[in-house]
Amino acid sequence: MINQNVYRYGATRSRIRDLFEYGLRQAAIVGRENVFDFSLGNPSIPAPEKVKQTIRKLLEGDPLAIHGYTPAAGAMEARQAIARDLCRRTGKTIRPENIFFTCGAAPALTSCLLALAVEDSELLILAPYFPEYKAYAHNAHMKVVEVPADTEAFQIRIEEVEKRITPHTQAIIINSPNNPSGVIYSVETLTALAELLRRKSKEYGHPIYIIADEPYRELTYDGAKTPYIPGIYDDTLVCYSWSKSLSMPGERIGYVLVPDSCADSEILFAAIAGAARTLGHVCAPSLLQRVVAECVELRPDLRAYDENRMTLYNALTEMGYSCVKPTGAFYMLVRSPSGDAEEFCARAMEKNVLIVPTDSFGCPGFCRVSTCVSPDMIRRSLPKFREVAQSYGLCE
Amino acid sequence: MINQNVYRYGATRSRIRDLFEYGLRQAAIVGRENVFDFSLGNPSIPAPEKVKQTIRKLLEGDPLAIHGYTPAAGAMEARQAIARDLCRRTGKTIRPENIFFTCGAAPALTSCLLALAVEDSELLILAPYFPEYKAYAHNAHMKVVEVPADTEAFQIRIEEVEKRITPHTQAIIINSPNNPSGVIYSVETLTALAELLRRKSKEYGHPIYIIADEPYRELTYDGAKTPYIPGIYDDTLVCYSWSKSLSMPGERIGYVLVPDSCADSEILFAAIAGAARTLGHVCAPSLLQRVVAECVELRPDLRAYDENRMTLYNALTEMGYSCVKPTGAFYMLVRSPSGDAEEFCARAMEKNVLIVPTDSFGCPGFCRVSTCVSPDMIRRSLPKFREVAQSYGLCE
Repeated sequence: MINQNVYRYGATRSRIRDLFEYGLRQAAIVGRENVFDFSLGNPSIPAPEKVKQTIRKLLEGDPLAIHGYTPAAGAMEARQAIARDLCRRTGKTIRPENIFFTCGAAPALTSCLLALAVEDSELLILAPYFPEYKAYAHNAHMKVVEVPADTEAFQIRIEEVEKRITPHTQAIIINSPNNPSGVIYSVETLTALAELLRRKSKEYGHPIYIIADEPYRELTYDGAKTPYIPGIYDDTLVCYSWSKSLSMPGERIGYVLVPDSCADSEILFAAIAGAARTLGHVCAPSLLQRVVAECVELRPDLRAYDENRMTLYNALTEMGYSCVKPTGAFYMLVRSPSGDAEEFCARAMEKNVLIVPTDSFGCPGFCRVSTCVSPDMIRRSLPKFREVAQSYGLCE
Repeated sequence: MINQNVYRYGATRSRIRDLFEYGLRQAAIVGRENVFDFSLGNPSIPAPEKVKQTIRKLLEGDPLAIHGYTPAAGAMEARQAIARDLCRRTGKTIRPENIFFTCGAAPALTSCLLALAVEDSELLILAPYFPEYKAYAHNAHMKVVEVPADTEAFQIRIEEVEKRITPHTQAIIINSPNNPSGVIYSVETLTALAELLRRKSKEYGHPIYIIADEPYRELTYDGAKTPYIPGIYDDTLVCYSWSKSLSMPGERIGYVLVPDSCADSEILFAAIAGAARTLGHVCAPSLLQRVVAECVELRPDLRAYDENRMTLYNALTEMGYSCVKPTGAFYMLVRSPSGDAEEFCARAMEKNVLIVPTDSFGCPGFCRVSTCVSPDMIRRSLPKFREVAQSYGLCE
């Protein structure tokens, strides 16, 4: 007998993957240069040269040490390097003992959720949200409660959060800079959320945790900065990944930060470690732990993403599309001219332009356009975007 | 509120880790050369030179391709390479579509268990077993049923398995070559088990799966071979890892093989993929997928393990200890002269010899001695083993 619940997660394919694979098939028919795939969130900037140099250097060391098991939480020197860097960035005290290395942000999230999964627990997610959160909550047997999107500023509708907090609310996931909106939640927004959560935690007699999902933390533009949420709200867990900042999403290296400010932080850390263990975590890839420790001060060269962002934003706005201006990540939301995202996606697909309806992100009526693509593809795609705009009568 | 069940898995530390860390502390006091740590299963043979060369070569390729996301099941070229190699080894037809890459054997196991977790399902494990199976079953909410060890030949007590099969039995984990016994289950043993499972599957109207946990597959001695279990029993899933065969346990790279012979193999494959997704699997480390694909024909040079095995077996036997002669893996079981493994462990610890009582492996009365250590440490440890033997009156 087979577990039908997880079978569905394996059989119902992701919309994004489907679009991507459609693009590959179309490329075989009409030529690769005539398919404009804006569906994926795969970095288009290569990993910094220093990553390669660091791997080459580490390979000259003792292979038993480089490729051997590390403690479950990670090699102490690597945890020290990450903690030191976080202290510098945030001005807060962060110890190596607060860092638990994981195989990327996804298992960081599943471990945090499982650590907070008690009977009847509820998890708040804010639209637009990363659809995989639902799969992760499934394993923890948490009930997912969606908070509708603020479709103007794409901040957080605090009053809508409040309506959905119950005595069973254990955590709320905050993804900022946001996938798919590219928006960074402001300090004002987060402060208001923190006030609400403090009040509700007190009312219900247990902490409501923020789980900050921050793979895009360093991907910000126009001088914007991603606020350090544990500095605003004590009971915050931070899930991080180097997938985007070092352009190595396939390498599966990230961490959970359990700050000392969290209630019962040591017990919580142990629960996350225990959760990870039951999920099959042994350690994060050992070579990569050393690589990120040595590359922790690198900042991505975001010029290409920034140029893509502005090229697409300006061109599409000029064509008459209504776009959400991103200040982070590498996505942009475009409102469907008909109000129907699937219809917009289908019409773009006819021109071999692949964009993702964000209905499954809890945000119907919009499509996500990835800006982590080649500038040349953007340039060549613009006449197609214009044809679609014309078909809606947005421009001549 | 914190999940107390997973907290316990994080807080109750592994006996092996504890011994290892005790060893580090003792080394600081009495000197590293005076501590004889036989506790860990960390390969002592370095990764083959070709692993390093392959990584160096791959680093010269396109970083976006090397470090980018692969499909969840793995890069198709890598799956093809593994499938081709498995066809050659087994003489069976194995397609790339049968291979699902994972971050090592542990998440391969958790994904298989979750895929087979239906209401009230039961999992059989055979003593001596790897204690982490219980943690993995915990996440799948499977009831673990232990089958007592055959403490003579360390094969499988088929009649004891039969007694424990119920209509709820979904799977049985087979770990061969076995950790901690070092024994390979024979074709005769596996054939008898297969006959039993076929009969019981028919009786209860659903397949009872074998989950073959095979990280030690290639670590065999005296010309022994690890039988290919799907060739003996159709409903077998194989969980593999390169941790031991390529000496890179920290790198977290392995796979699940779902052979076509399995009932509903495509649905089962999708269920494993779905289970992995809910556990936080995105893909296996991308660089390492390519490395193992290029190194798939490498076989470990086992001479060092083999020499250690024979040195320890012969010396300890000569001292009067009763040892289980291993033909695989890199462990040996030694019977406690007093019958009490904890007492034996403690007495050895007084001499700074660290060995692991296998009570937690479901096999009381024995200690596990790792043979993946330096020959020099073995040589220097023998007088200490002798002192312990003398204290029991085993020898002069």
